[in-house]
Amino acid sequence: MTMPPISYPVLRLRPKADARRIRHGAPWAWSDDLVLDRRSRAIPAGSLAVLEDAERQPLGLGVATVEGKIGLRLLDRDPAAVIDGVWLASRIKAALDLRERLYATPFYRLIHAEGDGLPGLIVDRFGDTLVMQPNAIWLEEREDLVAQGLLAATGCSTLIKNGTARARLAEGLPEVSAVLAGTAPEAAIPVPMNGATYMADVMGGQKTGLFYDQRDNHAFAARLARGARVLDVFAHVGGFALASLAAGAEHAVAIDGSEPALVMAQEGAVALGVADRLTTRKGDAFAEMEALAAEGAQFDLVICDPPAFAPSKTALEPGLRAYERVARLATALVAPGGVLILCSCSHAADLGKFRAACLRGIGRAGGDARVIHTGFAGPDHPQHPALTETGYLKALAFRLMP
Amino acid sequence: MTMPPISYPVLRLRPKADARRIRHGAPWAWSDDLVLDRRSRAIPAGSLAVLEDAERQPLGLGVATVEGKIGLRLLDRDPAAVIDGVWLASRIKAALDLRERLYATPFYRLIHAEGDGLPGLIVDRFGDTLVMQPNAIWLEEREDLVAQGLLAATGCSTLIKNGTARARLAEGLPEVSAVLAGTAPEAAIPVPMNGATYMADVMGGQKTGLFYDQRDNHAFAARLARGARVLDVFAHVGGFALASLAAGAEHAVAIDGSEPALVMAQEGAVALGVADRLTTRKGDAFAEMEALAAEGAQFDLVICDPPAFAPSKTALEPGLRAYERVARLATALVAPGGVLILCSCSHAADLGKFRAACLRGIGRAGGDARVIHTGFAGPDHPQHPALTETGYLKALAFRLMP
Repeated sequence: MTMPPISYPVLRLRPKADARRIRHGAPWAWSDDLVLDRRSRAIPAGSLAVLEDAERQPLGLGVATVEGKIGLRLLDRDPAAVIDGVWLASRIKAALDLRERLYATPFYRLIHAEGDGLPGLIVDRFGDTLVMQPNAIWLEEREDLVAQGLLAATGCSTLIKNGTARARLAEGLPEVSAVLAGTAPEAAIPVPMNGATYMADVMGGQKTGLFYDQRDNHAFAARLARGARVLDVFAHVGGFALASLAAGAEHAVAIDGSEPALVMAQEGAVALGVADRLTTRKGDAFAEMEALAAEGAQFDLVICDPPAFAPSKTALEPGLRAYERVARLATALVAPGGVLILCSCSHAADLGKFRAACLRGIGRAGGDARVIHTGFAGPDHPQHPALTETGYLKALAFRLMP
Repeated sequence: MTMPPISYPVLRLRPKADARRIRHGAPWAWSDDLVLDRRSRAIPAGSLAVLEDAERQPLGLGVATVEGKIGLRLLDRDPAAVIDGVWLASRIKAALDLRERLYATPFYRLIHAEGDGLPGLIVDRFGDTLVMQPNAIWLEEREDLVAQGLLAATGCSTLIKNGTARARLAEGLPEVSAVLAGTAPEAAIPVPMNGATYMADVMGGQKTGLFYDQRDNHAFAARLARGARVLDVFAHVGGFALASLAAGAEHAVAIDGSEPALVMAQEGAVALGVADRLTTRKGDAFAEMEALAAEGAQFDLVICDPPAFAPSKTALEPGLRAYERVARLATALVAPGGVLILCSCSHAADLGKFRAACLRGIGRAGGDARVIHTGFAGPDHPQHPALTETGYLKALAFRLMP
């Protein structure tokens, strides 16, 4: 029996729009490039729609949001694709296959939105627990299907919906969180990475959550940590500090503004049996760095992983100045011949601009630096090549010449 | 007793030259930026000279080569520095300190030219053996001092001079190689990296030598290798193939045009106890890839690490076309959901251009790729930030969507 073809509404590119860009892989059509008339404007946000070029040749099936800047996000190059449980399961399986090749234990980002062919969907796995961020209407409308697909593919027992991301606002979705399967973990989940144990409070949200994107950069820092005095600024739950201690650092100081995050760092140090080698300092990172300098403190390895100082184009210039200031203050704390690792998670500051800001700061502090490492988010954060040059996350390791 | 100050000849920047660039860290002065008169033109290439700005403020002490494009390479920001054994020892010690922090065993690039404050000097360490490439006149004139410094710092017994680099030609230096200390190794030296054993023929030069720069990218490939069918194109002595086999690859095929290099790869596989899992194919990489495609061969992991197709700006366009062709042919050999790692060691092809060429090739082969890794040369190849954006070596890992 052949199913009758599903009839999707159509969105058409304007004659002047660059259809080749999309044909060659770009997964988004800009609203400005679409023919917008009464009919197309009436397509409800989140609806499935077929994208056609100006000559009515189909380019694929996607999710329409014609009132936004991105008018359509492609889901499938097949305009007749059916976005059902089978379709979702095949995308989820493809994502899981990659992670299972990469990681020996089930702790990773399982779904990274367009990077895994699932626009708007972020899923992190913490052993038997999944935390899902459905940041688009089409996902919200298929929440049960997505949940079933994730649980079936992974065999996980617990699925938590974290609906607090800012991206939901842009889609007009409410801020809601819920336990969709299993029971909410009562305690933080121990997460093994790079020989350390991190405590992930999957219910606590960003303040004490855990991010997997820096894992490979933590590993790089750990290579330099044996016997070292380590300073982890903007430490959050101790990403760099704990990896360094696991690799044999003599001592680590973790600075953060969040007391709950530092408590998680301390719990991680206890789990690792190195609580006596971790010192936490709650406070403003800039003020704490100045205080350490006044104390004459010196470290063999200093890492600064600040929040996004340049989250948007308008924030770029002040953001770059903030990165420069971080670099300047941190350089003063690096012992001669030591290493300074500076990170940025700002979309707007590309690698070249971030690098230049770091070098200005290092130079102003009198440092003479060599670049020994340039790192990005780990491979469980696949990047769609048409969307960004190098991704939002950059980590640069500078060796300061003695 | 105070030594009388040594009197060095002076090279001065033109008034229009950008002295700030050098004051802020650039280690070279272009000849076009120097005041060139009869006096300055008479400074023999390789001589030490003080660099001054147009206002006669000293910028540092360097090596003059006024007839070349680079008129002076800075050695020290102190214009009164004395370039003697003590000075060399301190630079060598600084370089060694970094490597000893990074590596548990003595196999690494020990000196990476400007990256270690020693312009023109390359030294690789293979356990007890050092291979030195002195690619500048100032080093050739101080060969004994450099040799003594290297042997004293490392405790190595053997020092080989490899004077075959093209860079020596530009300096007017002869092509000579010699054993400066100890005795030439009679057999290839086993080199442990990433759990594999590589055979380094330190006397055989580039054809069967060993490069350390890809070590971290080998390690990344190895993370994907468990149980995988691996194809290593332009395999040389088996860099990616052996690391993959050490990490549990089911089987690896290594293609290279050099029979001696493939023999080294086979010897490495024997040393690792996996000779039955390595197949070597001698031949042209393009033709071999086409032959494999005709056979219907498929691999879970394909790596192409070709020679520099775009070594200079004039070779950029044909070079990029060659990278595109490599990407296209290799994509056809990747099993659905598999990973393709494409490398470039071309100075002229920057990351963005190389990436775009790869994506064109993948697209022409019908592939839909995600970037899961962007890697560069390892941390024993420190980069002077003023000299290049990201270094010559790039490795991109593309996951091909199933």
